[in-house]
Amino acid sequence: MIIDCHGHYTTAPKALETWRNRQIAGIQDAALMPKASDLQISDDELRETIERNQLRLMKERGSDLTIFSPRASFMAHHIGDFQVSSTWAAICNELCFRVVQLFPDHFIPAAMLPQSPGVDPATSIPELVRCVEQLGNVGINLNPDPSGGHWTSPPLSDRAWYPIYEKMVEYDIPAMIHVSTSCNACFHTTGAHYLNADTTAFMQCLTSDLFTDFPTLRFIIPHGGGAVPYHWGRFRGLAQELKKPLLKDHLLKNIFFDTCVYHQPGIDLLTTVIPVENILFASEMIGAVRGIDPETGHCFDDTKRYIEASTIVVGDDRHQVYEGNARRVFPRLDAALIAKGL
Amino acid sequence: MIIDCHGHYTTAPKALETWRNRQIAGIQDAALMPKASDLQISDDELRETIERNQLRLMKERGSDLTIFSPRASFMAHHIGDFQVSSTWAAICNELCFRVVQLFPDHFIPAAMLPQSPGVDPATSIPELVRCVEQLGNVGINLNPDPSGGHWTSPPLSDRAWYPIYEKMVEYDIPAMIHVSTSCNACFHTTGAHYLNADTTAFMQCLTSDLFTDFPTLRFIIPHGGGAVPYHWGRFRGLAQELKKPLLKDHLLKNIFFDTCVYHQPGIDLLTTVIPVENILFASEMIGAVRGIDPETGHCFDDTKRYIEASTIVVGDDRHQVYEGNARRVFPRLDAALIAKGL
Repeated sequence: MIIDCHGHYTTAPKALETWRNRQIAGIQDAALMPKASDLQISDDELRETIERNQLRLMKERGSDLTIFSPRASFMAHHIGDFQVSSTWAAICNELCFRVVQLFPDHFIPAAMLPQSPGVDPATSIPELVRCVEQLGNVGINLNPDPSGGHWTSPPLSDRAWYPIYEKMVEYDIPAMIHVSTSCNACFHTTGAHYLNADTTAFMQCLTSDLFTDFPTLRFIIPHGGGAVPYHWGRFRGLAQELKKPLLKDHLLKNIFFDTCVYHQPGIDLLTTVIPVENILFASEMIGAVRGIDPETGHCFDDTKRYIEASTIVVGDDRHQVYEGNARRVFPRLDAALIAKGL
Repeated sequence: MIIDCHGHYTTAPKALETWRNRQIAGIQDAALMPKASDLQISDDELRETIERNQLRLMKERGSDLTIFSPRASFMAHHIGDFQVSSTWAAICNELCFRVVQLFPDHFIPAAMLPQSPGVDPATSIPELVRCVEQLGNVGINLNPDPSGGHWTSPPLSDRAWYPIYEKMVEYDIPAMIHVSTSCNACFHTTGAHYLNADTTAFMQCLTSDLFTDFPTLRFIIPHGGGAVPYHWGRFRGLAQELKKPLLKDHLLKNIFFDTCVYHQPGIDLLTTVIPVENILFASEMIGAVRGIDPETGHCFDDTKRYIEASTIVVGDDRHQVYEGNARRVFPRLDAALIAKGL
């Protein structure tokens, strides 16, 4: 089985964006604020957006199951207050849940949280609980910068985040550390902010003792870990300067990288320097880079091709990257598969 | 000849830091503000800090000439106002100039600018002119984020930066895009902020047409280009989505990467995906990562070993990385060497 641990509902019906725009208008003028129930999307519409897009490409490329969460760039936690984010997160999570109900063999949900800049992260817990207990979510996306590129929250090692970690440990669910749209003109969202956040999050963990406090806490750092594997020597050296343990002991029981690196040399670097047990297959398809690479004739984000072409990830290692690691890092996914006899 | 294009005076005598601390105290209490002339450092002191450190390691490792600029993390442009930065930049640039006078065969200077958050970049031009015309500087360090991790300046493609670019073009000098200390608790200075800035700067160039306006402008993106080479497929794909030319045409006549990547797989990735004419040898020694890699028994930042061990950069390509590209990207360096018969 090939599990893609990083998919977002980037192809949701236009009605979702229209509703969101009305909600944003409602922040300024309460008379314009829509009700959640104003959003009407039929199962047929949902089915069509998935069958024509993600599911079609999964079948073409040969992946079986996607861990599916709301569109990352649309989380936009910087817009409005907690109430705005809370309503929006609930709607987005419910849409993903409906997709999963329509295609239970191909999708399993991960939750977006109703984060909001300057608001206590603990306020996200009720939605997290609802998503795990009622909607069958097997993980969450955690935004280390709800401000959208101004980085006004404390580092992930700060105790302000601990209530979320306690709940994650209780439910035994991992978090993908994933920012949303940048509203800082310096940072292009998918070309700079995403990668910077990945690197930043890793270094926040490196300089702290977060995983001493939470030995079973697990983070997936997406986009191949930002700059981290490429600069693995720098990070090993910085850990040494800071008198931290070797990275494999300090961080690699808790931090995992996905394979959203869109060319063969990048995947080869990732799989050369990061132990195989820390790498989870992913494509973030359909996402930031949708085109065809003129150098290969295939889609940039068809990451399975890079794994298939790898001379580094072979034999059982390939099974680990495709399936084994995801089942270990997402125990609720594993349990759901076992319940189906898989 | 082996030219290291990225060295900072990280080993300056303690008196420099003491003076800076007095200056910082003077921001709050003008009575404490030192005069520039209060800083007294003898040639013998300068000589000792270099002979025991950078020059010793250059001889041990086998590099010949370092492009030498003030300590990046000490630029701290976020501290004080333009006057504070201006005095500080002048002092730091003069110290590097004195080092170069003491060791003219081994060092050549690049300038720090007196940038200050919210202050027109054009105010840096007098110091730039002085450094080029009077102190023989062959390049500058340009900080894309003088706020120190709050990213409050416009992107490098903004016209606010154009006066500096016009002067760079006039003098035919490149800029290394290099941030300073992070005062944002989210970003570790050398483990996150530096790498993020590299990626950010590249993407600012990618999304703009800066090099259409300045076809001969040249940027060196340090630390191996941040996350860029590792995600070269993503950047090629994003350029394609944005209807930009191929990166080799859009950016690689103007953007160069150094080799400050502290392990063999990273250097191999860099040299696999980036054309050899865009790679300049560098170590940033003595800098962020000073220890010995237990996996190799050699210093992490002894980057020459990675080039020597490379099976990708061989023959004349190695000469390009070590010398040819630096002479082409820094024409004033080339002229200075030619004047010496080199």
